[in-house]
Amino acid sequence: MTPSGPGSPLVECVPNLSEGRDREVIAALEAAASAAEGVKLLDSHSDPDHNRTVLTFAGPPPQVLLATMRLAREAVRRIDMRAHSGVHPRMGAIDVIPFVPLRATSLESCAQLAREMARYLGEDLQVPAFLYGAAAAAERPRSLHDIRGAGNLSVDAMSKRLRPPDFGPPAPHPTAGASAVGARQPLIAFNVNLEADLEVAERIARAMRASSGGLREVQALAFPLHSRGLVQVSMNLLDYRVTGLSQLLARVRELAADGGVGLVGCELVGLLPAAAMEGLETETMPGIPRPEDTIEARLARAGLG
Amino acid sequence: MTPSGPGSPLVECVPNLSEGRDREVIAALEAAASAAEGVKLLDSHSDPDHNRTVLTFAGPPPQVLLATMRLAREAVRRIDMRAHSGVHPRMGAIDVIPFVPLRATSLESCAQLAREMARYLGEDLQVPAFLYGAAAAAERPRSLHDIRGAGNLSVDAMSKRLRPPDFGPPAPHPTAGASAVGARQPLIAFNVNLEADLEVAERIARAMRASSGGLREVQALAFPLHSRGLVQVSMNLLDYRVTGLSQLLARVRELAADGGVGLVGCELVGLLPAAAMEGLETETMPGIPRPEDTIEARLARAGLG
Repeated sequence: MTPSGPGSPLVECVPNLSEGRDREVIAALEAAASAAEGVKLLDSHSDPDHNRTVLTFAGPPPQVLLATMRLAREAVRRIDMRAHSGVHPRMGAIDVIPFVPLRATSLESCAQLAREMARYLGEDLQVPAFLYGAAAAAERPRSLHDIRGAGNLSVDAMSKRLRPPDFGPPAPHPTAGASAVGARQPLIAFNVNLEADLEVAERIARAMRASSGGLREVQALAFPLHSRGLVQVSMNLLDYRVTGLSQLLARVRELAADGGVGLVGCELVGLLPAAAMEGLETETMPGIPRPEDTIEARLARAGLG
Repeated sequence: MTPSGPGSPLVECVPNLSEGRDREVIAALEAAASAAEGVKLLDSHSDPDHNRTVLTFAGPPPQVLLATMRLAREAVRRIDMRAHSGVHPRMGAIDVIPFVPLRATSLESCAQLAREMARYLGEDLQVPAFLYGAAAAAERPRSLHDIRGAGNLSVDAMSKRLRPPDFGPPAPHPTAGASAVGARQPLIAFNVNLEADLEVAERIARAMRASSGGLREVQALAFPLHSRGLVQVSMNLLDYRVTGLSQLLARVRELAADGGVGLVGCELVGLLPAAAMEGLETETMPGIPRPEDTIEARLARAGLG
């Protein structure tokens, strides 16, 4: 509907959906996300233990908004949080929706998309929506942790604890819970898996986490991966220019060795900027990001480069 | 959110809303229609006897779609068809939504917008939506008349007569009724008012109407204008290149003279293409379109020209 030439605005959306097991539902979500003209699905990552799928799609800003509306409609229809279990903290079917500026657009433009999306969730789908990150209003909580906490509240429990949302009803949607919608710069979601007790993973996560004195720009949580008999240190690297991905990996490896365990493998959730590949060329661990996992490579392949 | 330079795609939407009296509601509808970035309200025309408002707004295609969603949400919230009375045939709060290609886009692109909008009405707002014009599916009724008939059905009566819609529930929305969403080329909505019995207006309308042997590309209905003590011949001129507006006016004048009545005035609903002004320069009747009533003039004034 709008031109998408090399210099035209390009936005990425990386929604986290609370379904990581049912292939039929995941396929329907993927189809919804790429139904709008000019929008391309760049990546889809499902985890059965998290019971969560992270989609990455991109296109011209308003079309990405339309695609995200389509996706949210499908998620509300298909995901029932009353029947949900998974190790990752979450509060709704379409749990977190970040808009990310990729080209010829701004964080503030992405915050506008987030507000429009939150309005849609709240007013049309009746899913309470919280703005976070660069989209959060002044005096309102900005971080996901401040909004949802670290736990997995049931919809029932949440209805007692939910703060007033930015848009929508004060109580969670009976099946779809609540959603957080925000704007942010690209981040790298990177997990390391270990054969160890959860306690070891928790200790490593704590040592990695910027908020408890670890590496700068790193968020970290520990999860058991029941289906694989492993534990996971699940991290967000908010700015790879401050802490490199290879530096992060070296530090995890060191901490694991201190605990007497080795790393079984790692995994990227979504994509990473090409510049963040630096120093990874010599890594041989299973799951190390490859050049085809960069945003740039996927955009080029999708004809959006 | 997207560039809107001189060569960029431009779409117009001309929704007909079932409220033509309450200034507060009309102002809220106007605000909703122009809330999306890059979308400009070009015209607003309310008629208390029709109890109908026709908005004209334009912008880049996906933004116009977002604005129309906003408008529909507001209309569903504010207009209650159970309390509605008006002389114009209608079936819902947001009664008719045509998308019109203005520049660097196609009728088929507008049909896509119409389908996306109909999906929104049906699935999110639970308002049954019918596609018409270039957006209608094969084997489905194409004209508004085929969809809604010529009468003013109550929501109750409609629930017995409604055909299955293209999107949404099979029964009308309890307060907002149903909607028709379509794509078409620009048309000219032009009314002539007379001091006469309704019967005279009906005879003129019949004689003007293409479908009963009148002028080509002309649709016509007759209405009483109770608040003004007049009657009206309300016309759509589908293609002014086939039948000129001055030719249409001359023929109405002739028919009125045959009936022994004169024309009190006329009115344009919405805007008209500049090229359709030809031959009107010498007309002095109240309400004759002026150069500032053209789409081109309003686009230029709104910075979209």
